[in-house]
Amino acid sequence: MTIAGERTIPTREEIFAAHGGGKLGTALTAPLANARDLAVAYTPGVAEVSRAIAADPGLAARYTWTNRLVAVVSDGTAVLGLGDIGPRAALPVMEGKSALFKAFADLDSIPLVLDTTDVDEIVEALVRLRPSFGAVNLEDVSAPRCFELERRLVEALDCPVMHDDQHGTAIVLLAALRGACAVQGRELDGLRVVISGAGAAGVACARILLAAGVRDVVVLDSRGVLDPGRGGEKAAVAALTNPRGVTGGLAEALDGADVFVGLSSAKVPEELLARMAREAIVFALSNPDPEVHPDVARRHAAIVATGRSDFPNQINNVLAFPGVFRGALDAGARRITEEMKLAAAEAIFSVAREELSADAIVPSPFDPRVALAVSSAVAAAAPESAVTH
Amino acid sequence: MTIAGERTIPTREEIFAAHGGGKLGTALTAPLANARDLAVAYTPGVAEVSRAIAADPGLAARYTWTNRLVAVVSDGTAVLGLGDIGPRAALPVMEGKSALFKAFADLDSIPLVLDTTDVDEIVEALVRLRPSFGAVNLEDVSAPRCFELERRLVEALDCPVMHDDQHGTAIVLLAALRGACAVQGRELDGLRVVISGAGAAGVACARILLAAGVRDVVVLDSRGVLDPGRGGEKAAVAALTNPRGVTGGLAEALDGADVFVGLSSAKVPEELLARMAREAIVFALSNPDPEVHPDVARRHAAIVATGRSDFPNQINNVLAFPGVFRGALDAGARRITEEMKLAAAEAIFSVAREELSADAIVPSPFDPRVALAVSSAVAAAAPESAVTH
Repeated sequence: MTIAGERTIPTREEIFAAHGGGKLGTALTAPLANARDLAVAYTPGVAEVSRAIAADPGLAARYTWTNRLVAVVSDGTAVLGLGDIGPRAALPVMEGKSALFKAFADLDSIPLVLDTTDVDEIVEALVRLRPSFGAVNLEDVSAPRCFELERRLVEALDCPVMHDDQHGTAIVLLAALRGACAVQGRELDGLRVVISGAGAAGVACARILLAAGVRDVVVLDSRGVLDPGRGGEKAAVAALTNPRGVTGGLAEALDGADVFVGLSSAKVPEELLARMAREAIVFALSNPDPEVHPDVARRHAAIVATGRSDFPNQINNVLAFPGVFRGALDAGARRITEEMKLAAAEAIFSVAREELSADAIVPSPFDPRVALAVSSAVAAAAPESAVTH
Repeated sequence: MTIAGERTIPTREEIFAAHGGGKLGTALTAPLANARDLAVAYTPGVAEVSRAIAADPGLAARYTWTNRLVAVVSDGTAVLGLGDIGPRAALPVMEGKSALFKAFADLDSIPLVLDTTDVDEIVEALVRLRPSFGAVNLEDVSAPRCFELERRLVEALDCPVMHDDQHGTAIVLLAALRGACAVQGRELDGLRVVISGAGAAGVACARILLAAGVRDVVVLDSRGVLDPGRGGEKAAVAALTNPRGVTGGLAEALDGADVFVGLSSAKVPEELLARMAREAIVFALSNPDPEVHPDVARRHAAIVATGRSDFPNQINNVLAFPGVFRGALDAGARRITEEMKLAAAEAIFSVAREELSADAIVPSPFDPRVALAVSSAVAAAAPESAVTH
């Protein structure tokens, strides 16, 4: 359980000490202590297994680690709030992500950071490495490149690929909104939702909310409410959103809005929050500095969530990605479909529902039921057409 | 200890059972059990580490796992005795290799198998992935491509790269020959050595023996003794070897030879072994079927070695590669030099010397002193020019 006000920000010394030598290692599934072990796991025994896979490549999923191995892939162009710091500096984050896969879903995972930001080159490298892993978690790739990169990888690789900054965030956001609505006795389709930020997370959150039945979504970036005159992904999102034709900036968008979702670092002045409807819901998700401090947001909102562990309602991707990949791999899915993402959100909500309150709209990230519920739901939602076996 | 005649060939059932789900996993170096752990290893704590590496990329070696991470890289074109079975079928062998790195030198290691046999494409992929690992163990790549691939990778990557089928084999062969000579009270420079096989291992063995002081090496392939009319690597080896200008085949080469080194699957008829000099040394290294059965070889040779664990004197790469990479990484070496390889062979011999006999010219692969001795010797032999710090 996360307790409001609990100090979880560690010291600099503690952080660097914990990172000495990295956070990840490899391990043997069986000991290699004598000649017989060696003869089983290596020569001559391994030749039998290699011969069997050569005859039937599908057996690689059974007799190698690939079917539980997620490659955590990044080019280091949009790391946390740090921006384009490059692949070497991104690596501690990717190691952390791999560690989370292990801790939360017992999936093995290797960080692969790439010394190129060229989408063609990244796709090419992963296509060549395809037999080495079972799924790809894209991470911290800058927008709008992340949209093209994910689309290209989904086309090129016959395995689950998901950009977590987009879809992991979107899944947990939807779960949290389901929780907030349940607390308030409201339905998604009656909500006016404002999303501040049209990067990877903003775009994916808009899409999943629409897919889940929200009808009034307004998305803004630093230039104001998106309109179809924008380029690329933003034009596509503009075409799907803003049914009332709101123009202007955050002030206009928040007028009478039920839900604010902050996914950019842009601060929200308190007087704008005051323009929201009664019983407002504020998700200020920028990390570590939310768009508005939760104590301030509370003056104008009935339910407040952030990305921080030291306040209630922590909206954290770790609620989603371990179970999503575990479910997709367990099901032998070739891709992660919209239905699988919606099922993941519903599964997170189903765990929260057991002890729901305005300060507990999502489960604790450390609730062991979450990854299990998500992976089962995702596996069950994998359509036959997407399953390899 | 390996005991002659001991049955170490496991059953098919045992082998496949042991390979279920693969042989490798990832592990956390510290638990991730609560919000504080998460705040240290992931957000927000990890941002401090990423920021530090962004300011000084050299810190990646200290605060990520890369400095103890070996990528075991293969395209699956020359796997064990199975040939070109492709990357998927090669993966169990690479997982086994990674497991050996962990078990024998406490190095982490990830298998990266590539779905291309194009040298340019393999180099390109590894250059792009360079920030992800600390060293490259090339494995089971067919000759003559392996020579070009290794050379290109050594040029392109600022980290240790070694094709183990070449140099791991060569190091252990040299160590074994040092052991055999010590048993017999002979010196390397007086030996006549015949190497049967001019693939990856044969070429590297010829080179390391010359570097160690052997003066009379004759190398053969299926067409007979190499002559300078051959192409590529074979022409280069021909120019360095065969000082007496032997022509013909194995019969001519073995006439009066002191040492036979078998590194091809070509069988050696007993009557040819009978042509060798007195006190002959026979290393029949093809696995699992030696070029000549050790019992037959014993009739004509004073010292016999094979690659098998069920006969004395097992010449196994695992005596070398774990310590070689560990030493190179410990020293911060940019490459693995000839001096480092010679030091590795000498270190293996130094352990064997403690209990040397005609049936114990090399240590047991499970002797824990070996990897330690090799890594220390290799680290000490890393020239200043090759060290990054």
